[in-house]
Amino acid sequence: MVLPASGSGRLVICGFGLIGGSIAAGVRASNMTATIVGVDADPAVLDEARQCGLLDASGWPDDLGPDDLVLIAVPTLSVAKVIEALWDVEQGILACGAVVSDVASVKQPVLESARAICGRLPANLVPGHPIAGSERSGVGAARGDLFRDHRVILTPVAETAPAARQRVADLWQGLGAEVVDMAVDEHDRVLAMTSHLPHLLAFALVDTLGRVPEHEAVFRFAAGGFRDFTRIASSDPVMWSDIFTANAPAVGAVLDRLEAELAELRSLLEAGDRDGLRTIFARAKALRDAHVSNQGGGGHD
Amino acid sequence: MVLPASGSGRLVICGFGLIGGSIAAGVRASNMTATIVGVDADPAVLDEARQCGLLDASGWPDDLGPDDLVLIAVPTLSVAKVIEALWDVEQGILACGAVVSDVASVKQPVLESARAICGRLPANLVPGHPIAGSERSGVGAARGDLFRDHRVILTPVAETAPAARQRVADLWQGLGAEVVDMAVDEHDRVLAMTSHLPHLLAFALVDTLGRVPEHEAVFRFAAGGFRDFTRIASSDPVMWSDIFTANAPAVGAVLDRLEAELAELRSLLEAGDRDGLRTIFARAKALRDAHVSNQGGGGHD
Repeated sequence: MVLPASGSGRLVICGFGLIGGSIAAGVRASNMTATIVGVDADPAVLDEARQCGLLDASGWPDDLGPDDLVLIAVPTLSVAKVIEALWDVEQGILACGAVVSDVASVKQPVLESARAICGRLPANLVPGHPIAGSERSGVGAARGDLFRDHRVILTPVAETAPAARQRVADLWQGLGAEVVDMAVDEHDRVLAMTSHLPHLLAFALVDTLGRVPEHEAVFRFAAGGFRDFTRIASSDPVMWSDIFTANAPAVGAVLDRLEAELAELRSLLEAGDRDGLRTIFARAKALRDAHVSNQGGGGHD
Repeated sequence: MVLPASGSGRLVICGFGLIGGSIAAGVRASNMTATIVGVDADPAVLDEARQCGLLDASGWPDDLGPDDLVLIAVPTLSVAKVIEALWDVEQGILACGAVVSDVASVKQPVLESARAICGRLPANLVPGHPIAGSERSGVGAARGDLFRDHRVILTPVAETAPAARQRVADLWQGLGAEVVDMAVDEHDRVLAMTSHLPHLLAFALVDTLGRVPEHEAVFRFAAGGFRDFTRIASSDPVMWSDIFTANAPAVGAVLDRLEAELAELRSLLEAGDRDGLRTIFARAKALRDAHVSNQGGGGHD
């Protein structure tokens, strides 16, 4: 897809953090031409984006229309506020036909908020979630290739206009991503397992070890396994407290399962059941070796 | 240190897996000269080591003496069997004065076994543990630089001869490692936290997700965060079932702490307490950012 040149067909990115900035950087590095408009509550962020050459203009345009694409790239629980603003403004951005998408890591609450705000789900609102990220945050960490060879999940619903979905899919494909559609509830359940629970465990482990009497020795003798295991504990606390608040039921359900497994492992430990432990470890190793490549850089959701 | 040349001063490596093979490869790549003798229950392993140029001879030498250094590099629970053999053989290897060390990830059971077998702790037995490894195992994964810029913990006790400890420290320093002494119980407690518990969580998470109905989608949509978090779940099940069996009390104690933290996080989740979650995540992020470097390859204990 070639986004229309300046004048019509703007790409408005609301929230210029790691994801918003990386979308802008990716568009700049691609053969897509677009006027990139940045919106952010923090003027310093827009200054930084401008200095990085990622912005053509800033602030909500007065004259958004069907040619424009709006990407909401703010933390999960702030998406509703932006949708509300888009719905309320005199111009009625969501009513004017501009395609609007988001990048929130939990989709059900975004759809529920939009329904509550607009009274129905606007046909031009396409919920999306790029499965890419970094433990680093902010526009300073933006990378134009952040989404290359990563998946982007869209969760269109019955009301979603196919043309709007296609417009959003084209943008992500233009950034090198593979676009996959998924049901909203499946998305939130699967992400609770692959992304949210690992983050919870990493935060929990680091915080637990910070409280033990030997914590200085603990961090001094942490090796590569610990470094990789806890890398995601360096992620943005605001983004992640939003995600857990938004996806609490699905995270709670998979935490139940994990705690049952830990109880099983503990009973094997206490019984000194080496064969029982080995059976579980061998099963886990076989699963991971079969399904997870060790290749690739540090990107993550 | 320069190990004495062939004839006297052999380096006997018992257990030619990742660690044993990497010690041999590191000695070959260093300015240390040594006759490397390999001992392994599996003749195919010794063949592979020979083909890699890592062996000068194989099988226990008949004439071990004070100039020789024996490295026991078998899984934790097999160390005692080797010590028993060294004590029982007619030549009395542990009695003959050869320096003997091991690389087991848990130290207390090794010392207890040695005391039980020998009636006392031999002065020439130096317990050690290189904080380096890989989720790959076997001599085929051996790397001469595996220990470079890694720490090796020695846990000498009152009975340990300082000259024997120095001999072992010299070997590790010759391989580029930093040698640190630590009390036996502190070693086992700290490693339970930095290494054993993360491995338990990684094995538990992967096995848990393998059991959910959506497991295919789960592994398909796992991204870089999941890959790094679960890398250690690809570790050797035999090695790790030994470690957990040997260090069950210390692992159980830190698992208690982690489960208490998870209970706290769960109550915040259920209460929708976003600020409470953010406080914990921010504390974990600050700790990790301060203490753990993101640099370096995939090596781990």
